[in-house]
Amino acid sequence: MTADPRSRAQRRRDTEHRLTHDEDIWVASASADGAPYMVPLSFDWDGQALLMATPTDSSTGRNLAATRVVRLGLGHTRDVSMIDGEVEALEIDALPLERGDRFAARAGFDPRALATPYRWFRVSPRRIQAWREVNELTDRELMRDGRWLV
Amino acid sequence: MTADPRSRAQRRRDTEHRLTHDEDIWVASASADGAPYMVPLSFDWDGQALLMATPTDSSTGRNLAATRVVRLGLGHTRDVSMIDGEVEALEIDALPLERGDRFAARAGFDPRALATPYRWFRVSPRRIQAWREVNELTDRELMRDGRWLV
Repeated sequence: MTADPRSRAQRRRDTEHRLTHDEDIWVASASADGAPYMVPLSFDWDGQALLMATPTDSSTGRNLAATRVVRLGLGHTRDVSMIDGEVEALEIDALPLERGDRFAARAGFDPRALATPYRWFRVSPRRIQAWREVNELTDRELMRDGRWLV
Repeated sequence: MTADPRSRAQRRRDTEHRLTHDEDIWVASASADGAPYMVPLSFDWDGQALLMATPTDSSTGRNLAATRVVRLGLGHTRDVSMIDGEVEALEIDALPLERGDRFAARAGFDPRALATPYRWFRVSPRRIQAWREVNELTDRELMRDGRWLV
C-alpha cells in the first residue's frame, strides 16, 4: 500500500529533520574525466551547509577538490532526500576551533587529530528533492538555485 | 558498541544475500565532464550481473550510456556493500521475453510497457567491497578484476 503523497512543506520538514538528526549521508562525486565515486560519510548540518571531512588523498577528497560539485543522498532508497551542492574545500586548520569540536562530537571522530591528512568540505545545497514512491515524483523539488521553494 | 569484524567469507554471503533480496540500490554515475549523479533504482541480480532499467533520456541513462562505468551502493550507511561495475546498455526490446518478465515481477514495473523510452543497463561487477564500521575497513575488498577473492 502506498501512502498519500506528502505536501512539499511536509517534505521540507522531513528533510530538515534528517539533516539535523542523521549521522551519515551518501556522497556521490566524480573525477574530472567522468569516473563516478560514492561512499557514506558523517556530516554536521548547521542550518545552511553540511560539513564533512575526508582524507585529502581519497577518491572523494580529490574529486570534490577538483570539481567542486557533489550529489548527496539521505535516507533509504524508498524515502529519500537528494541534495545537489556546491563544495568549498578547506584546509583542516582553517575552521574555528569550536566548529571543529562540534563536528567531532557529532561524527564520533576528529579529523584534526589523525595522522592521515584530512580536509574539510563544506557543501551548500543548490537543489533539494525528496520523494518516497512514484506518487511523490510530482512536487519533489524543494529547493532551486539555493532557495527553498516552500 | 561495535561488533567484531566479519570474515571476508561472511561479507560475501551477506553481500550476495542483499543482491538476491534487496529491491533497490543506490546508483552513482557521472557525465563525461565530471558532474556526479545518484538515484535509487530497482534491480534484479541473476548471480552474475545486475539488471536495471531507466529512461534513455534521464541523467543516469545518459551517463551510463556515455561512460559505461557505475558505482553502486547496497544497504545503509553503516553496513554497506559497494560495487564498481562495467555497464552494457541494451535497447528495451533486446532482452529475451522471460528475462524482462522476471525483472518486471521483481521491480514492480515493466519498462517495456511505458510511454517514456527506457533502456536496460546490465552491470557486471568488477570490484566489490563491504564494511560496517571502521574496524571492518581492513579486508573490505571481496572482488577484484571481476573475480571473488573469497
